[in-house]
Amino acid sequence: MKQSLGARTLLYTHPVVVIGTYDREGRPNVMTAAWAGICCSSPPCVAVSLQRPRHSHGNIMVNRAFTVNIPSEDHVREADFFGMVSGKDTDKFAASGLTPVKASKVNAPCVEEFPVVLECRLLHAHELGVHTQFVGEILDVRVDQTVIGPDGRPEMGRVRPFVYDSARQEYFGIGKLLGKAFSVGKDLKR
Amino acid sequence: MKQSLGARTLLYTHPVVVIGTYDREGRPNVMTAAWAGICCSSPPCVAVSLQRPRHSHGNIMVNRAFTVNIPSEDHVREADFFGMVSGKDTDKFAASGLTPVKASKVNAPCVEEFPVVLECRLLHAHELGVHTQFVGEILDVRVDQTVIGPDGRPEMGRVRPFVYDSARQEYFGIGKLLGKAFSVGKDLKR
Repeated sequence: MKQSLGARTLLYTHPVVVIGTYDREGRPNVMTAAWAGICCSSPPCVAVSLQRPRHSHGNIMVNRAFTVNIPSEDHVREADFFGMVSGKDTDKFAASGLTPVKASKVNAPCVEEFPVVLECRLLHAHELGVHTQFVGEILDVRVDQTVIGPDGRPEMGRVRPFVYDSARQEYFGIGKLLGKAFSVGKDLKR
Repeated sequence: MKQSLGARTLLYTHPVVVIGTYDREGRPNVMTAAWAGICCSSPPCVAVSLQRPRHSHGNIMVNRAFTVNIPSEDHVREADFFGMVSGKDTDKFAASGLTPVKASKVNAPCVEEFPVVLECRLLHAHELGVHTQFVGEILDVRVDQTVIGPDGRPEMGRVRPFVYDSARQEYFGIGKLLGKAFSVGKDLKR
């Protein structure tokens, strides 16, 4: 038996990503976002939604580039901080002690200490309401060598990302392996 | 030290959602998607990307409505199955034994056994490449009463959603609470 919670932005699960941009003067900024997701396989694209007053919003419009950095559990505190203050009046890299490094393919900074980064050039800016949805073409994915398993692929247990629960404003880690995709449901095929 | 994995659709984490639609004859269909995410707070919107040949793609264009259903860990098998076969030649509800129920606000079916559903009317269809990104306005979120905690809000530990690891094509459950958002990073504010 279901009950209505009304028209709201609830979804399970939201990712926690940190958007890296430079301002007009080349100063690096980061902000945390949960309204994000992959949106096309070819060209490979990721969508991130930002409100217009955000400092990062203007930065993306200026440089037409951004990075999507994935923090690990080790940096929940920094990721939370990056979502609470504005780059207009705070140097978030300096305040957090984390390190900006220029992306290899686009004019945007990465967070050196985070295990995964997507380097994106802006393809579309969709005005949806209070949020602008930026669609970025992923030009490269770079991952820390420490998160790569023996088979050459990143492992969830080494990346250790976390998710956001918008119903309760809480962060959760990733749990146990439940099964192989395109496999565990095979026995339901006739 | 980071290494390049090339231009690809890697992100941590991808949600696992099941899109519900009716075809022209009113037959319910479901398909599993991971290219999805909230994209606007007001109006509340969710984006889901589907390839053009998909049966559900045509259904959304016809009815301009869809549901986003969140499976729990109990239904990993069914969710995986829903992503492996086409509704063109399979009645996935019948094959899985799950129950279609018409949404309360839009012309699309929900999966009765899944704990959370977003009822959406189509606002935009963005052609991005091999995927069309459907932006749906969330007209209602309905949740099973069993997942609501004593304070009236859904609890992660009762919803028990899971995520998709595209690097290894695996499903993972949700782990432990790491902290309160807009709180754990407060001590970094000056």
